[in-house]
Amino acid sequence: MADVQNCDSCSSSPLELFERVTAQGEKVRSLKGGKASTDEIDAAVKLLLSLKVTYKTATGQDYKAGSPPVDFSPVSNNGPTTTQDEDFVDPWTVQTSNAKGVDYDKLIVRFGSSKIDKGLINRIERVTGKTPHHFLRRGIFFSHRDMNQILDAYENKKPFYLYTGRGPSSEALHVGHLISFIFAKWLQEVFNVPLVIQLTDDEKYLWKDLTIEKAYEYAIENAKDIIACGFDINKTFIFSDLDYLGMSSGFYKNVVKVQKHVTFNQVKGIFGFTDSDCIGKISFPAMQAAPSFSSSFPQIFKDKKDIQCLIPCAIDQDPYFRMTRDVAPRIGYLKPALLHSIFFPALQGAQTKMSSSDPNSSIFLTDTPKQIKTKINKHAFSGGKDTIEEHRKYGGNCEVDVSYMYLTFFLEDDDKLEKMKQAYTSGALLTGELKKVLIETLQPLIAAHQQRRKQITEEMVKQFMTPRKLAFDF
Amino acid sequence: MADVQNCDSCSSSPLELFERVTAQGEKVRSLKGGKASTDEIDAAVKLLLSLKVTYKTATGQDYKAGSPPVDFSPVSNNGPTTTQDEDFVDPWTVQTSNAKGVDYDKLIVRFGSSKIDKGLINRIERVTGKTPHHFLRRGIFFSHRDMNQILDAYENKKPFYLYTGRGPSSEALHVGHLISFIFAKWLQEVFNVPLVIQLTDDEKYLWKDLTIEKAYEYAIENAKDIIACGFDINKTFIFSDLDYLGMSSGFYKNVVKVQKHVTFNQVKGIFGFTDSDCIGKISFPAMQAAPSFSSSFPQIFKDKKDIQCLIPCAIDQDPYFRMTRDVAPRIGYLKPALLHSIFFPALQGAQTKMSSSDPNSSIFLTDTPKQIKTKINKHAFSGGKDTIEEHRKYGGNCEVDVSYMYLTFFLEDDDKLEKMKQAYTSGALLTGELKKVLIETLQPLIAAHQQRRKQITEEMVKQFMTPRKLAFDF
Repeated sequence: MADVQNCDSCSSSPLELFERVTAQGEKVRSLKGGKASTDEIDAAVKLLLSLKVTYKTATGQDYKAGSPPVDFSPVSNNGPTTTQDEDFVDPWTVQTSNAKGVDYDKLIVRFGSSKIDKGLINRIERVTGKTPHHFLRRGIFFSHRDMNQILDAYENKKPFYLYTGRGPSSEALHVGHLISFIFAKWLQEVFNVPLVIQLTDDEKYLWKDLTIEKAYEYAIENAKDIIACGFDINKTFIFSDLDYLGMSSGFYKNVVKVQKHVTFNQVKGIFGFTDSDCIGKISFPAMQAAPSFSSSFPQIFKDKKDIQCLIPCAIDQDPYFRMTRDVAPRIGYLKPALLHSIFFPALQGAQTKMSSSDPNSSIFLTDTPKQIKTKINKHAFSGGKDTIEEHRKYGGNCEVDVSYMYLTFFLEDDDKLEKMKQAYTSGALLTGELKKVLIETLQPLIAAHQQRRKQITEEMVKQFMTPRKLAFDF
Repeated sequence: MADVQNCDSCSSSPLELFERVTAQGEKVRSLKGGKASTDEIDAAVKLLLSLKVTYKTATGQDYKAGSPPVDFSPVSNNGPTTTQDEDFVDPWTVQTSNAKGVDYDKLIVRFGSSKIDKGLINRIERVTGKTPHHFLRRGIFFSHRDMNQILDAYENKKPFYLYTGRGPSSEALHVGHLISFIFAKWLQEVFNVPLVIQLTDDEKYLWKDLTIEKAYEYAIENAKDIIACGFDINKTFIFSDLDYLGMSSGFYKNVVKVQKHVTFNQVKGIFGFTDSDCIGKISFPAMQAAPSFSSSFPQIFKDKKDIQCLIPCAIDQDPYFRMTRDVAPRIGYLKPALLHSIFFPALQGAQTKMSSSDPNSSIFLTDTPKQIKTKINKHAFSGGKDTIEEHRKYGGNCEVDVSYMYLTFFLEDDDKLEKMKQAYTSGALLTGELKKVLIETLQPLIAAHQQRRKQITEEMVKQFMTPRKLAFDF
């Protein structure tokens, strides 16, 4: 199937076409049900048929009532219609019945994105002259949209910028939350580009039982952890929605532009909203879309509206950006490019995404060395066998072992990781020994983070969050 | 019926209760349709019945599926279900089949507002020591909500503020647009209070085929006409939504607060939105609600969240403020009070509201003396008889005569107006003579407006539209 999303020259997007066919279908039905003349009905049917042909030409798919075009359809229809072997992935829920985790190859097909293959990784290495990050080498960032466009731009000395974010639902981040930021930092260093980080405190106020003040407080606390990842203050702008909307001449205008071009039918299809949802939730996707456009940050990009955006994020955020990419050409903007990561597994296993509200579901950035040790020893799901004898005989299963999975994220040494995999699979390495390696990897990593976070003053947070020119000229 | 909207002590608003009954009804149906036990179904039915009793207690109405409580129901269900003798009034459409115009007494009952009666007008005179404006004396402002609370506050030296607005759908205003502003100016002078004026350029961008830039341009042009009404720059703040949202630390927070407490079901019921409407329209009512809360203007009211708001506006805007009043106590704010005006009739008759896009439907503030004369002579619907003879014999009908109606708005001299009414009704005054009086009233009034508007510089507009402290201490 052709990548219909790149068809910028089409006058209507697949979703728009879908809507038009649906509307025309309704018109035909109402004409038939009313007192319309045969001529009128014939004309309406003719238009309907021609719209269906246009739809098929544009999408490569037959029009099917109630089923939006595949690239834009929700990952699953809302509710319990998901079959048992289908994974469910949306920005709020990730579920799979497979202990290995979500089937990411299937997800690429369903989302209509592209796999980050060896060819792309090699090109990144060639273009930047840097060894690709182990998140790329190990398939942790596994899927993309238009990354080749970004590399083309980079080769042609055309600027681009990075955008990532976080929903501040609690005070403390867990290690899984670091993935996007670690990777964004690497991308920023390798490509030397501006980075904007959105804290969607408005989203958390709308979705959770939180006051505005509390959501904003979480945003500030989370900003400290983000800053502690080591971002360059001269190249990075962090913002809270609740704050920044009242400080930017460009942001709200872009929010309204997106809001004019997305219907309730569309967000219902993409996010599963219902008539009982508050209008804040219904319009929120535009808030997450707006930072994809450089004119939302006039202080950084001046009046430049055509600086392309690259978004590193977990794959569950893709629905927002599929919507954004659908709208972009209709409001005169470039589609953002994307790099998608897999989910960071909960200690209990890869079946679910981690929860900030369950302290035992992950390692938090506030955990003490002792807590880290206890949690891993007690809760990390093991792929090893029940007895030492069986384990020595049959070996462990790295594909479902959470300690091993965590090491793929945080142990940078490829050789050491590979050796442990072999030893664990053969049975030479026991679960307790594997856990010890993970504990010894995470303890210093988190202690160092805590050290850096202690240095972050309110003044530094304020500086990072002040709309300002960055160290780039546009 | 009790004024349920004043029941601040009730834990749930009528609309919330309505939603809860509806949701519980759906639950019962789904339990009955599924494999629920008899006990479970019985419990759910019991809760449903008790919710229905609560609903009736709170609203004085029986719960009826699909019919929100009367005070909050749309003036008509959307579309052609309106019966022939029912008027249709919402923020976008005003329709009546009666040449005298909308039946305002019926509207008061349907909207659940209160009539501005002699007692209230006398109290305004007593409290302020000023002769009530002829808009009050002549029933042009005819309906209110909580005006007595405002007068109580005023008597107790507690501050309040005024809020009115305009949707900038075109460059030129017509005389009808002046009504709210003339009255707001009078209220401001009589009570000596701050006034905020909202220009909903975002609304016009969302609803019309306009660019953001054009909508903002209209807002600026409209601001000039508003300023030309003679507002005191030290007491008046005019703002464009597109502009001000990016300049205020309080506005967006209040927008999100409202958006969290209004569901799509509710705006569907109040405004008739459908699933095909864009998410911008669906969430817009919160933008019009937010200026009702003093914390949306920290530059004027500092951190004061309890300064009550009084909104003079045409009655078609009431749906926005019924929604606002429903939400206010749930987000810890005071309900805004309201003063409602009747509609300014089109030259062609009182059946419809005027249209900015039809130059012959009204007198525009840009019209020349000659255009004014021609339009009135040619288009103003006459209540006179077909021939002079018949007119002298039977007299004219002031109730449908548009020239006479316009004079009730713009001829300040009560005696002169009364004399003309008698002379016209008796047949002594001919239509041409009545039109001449109107022409001679409007020509100097509009010429004077044009003179004042010419003096308005871009710099003055900028000053009026700059967020700043006004001449009041809070």
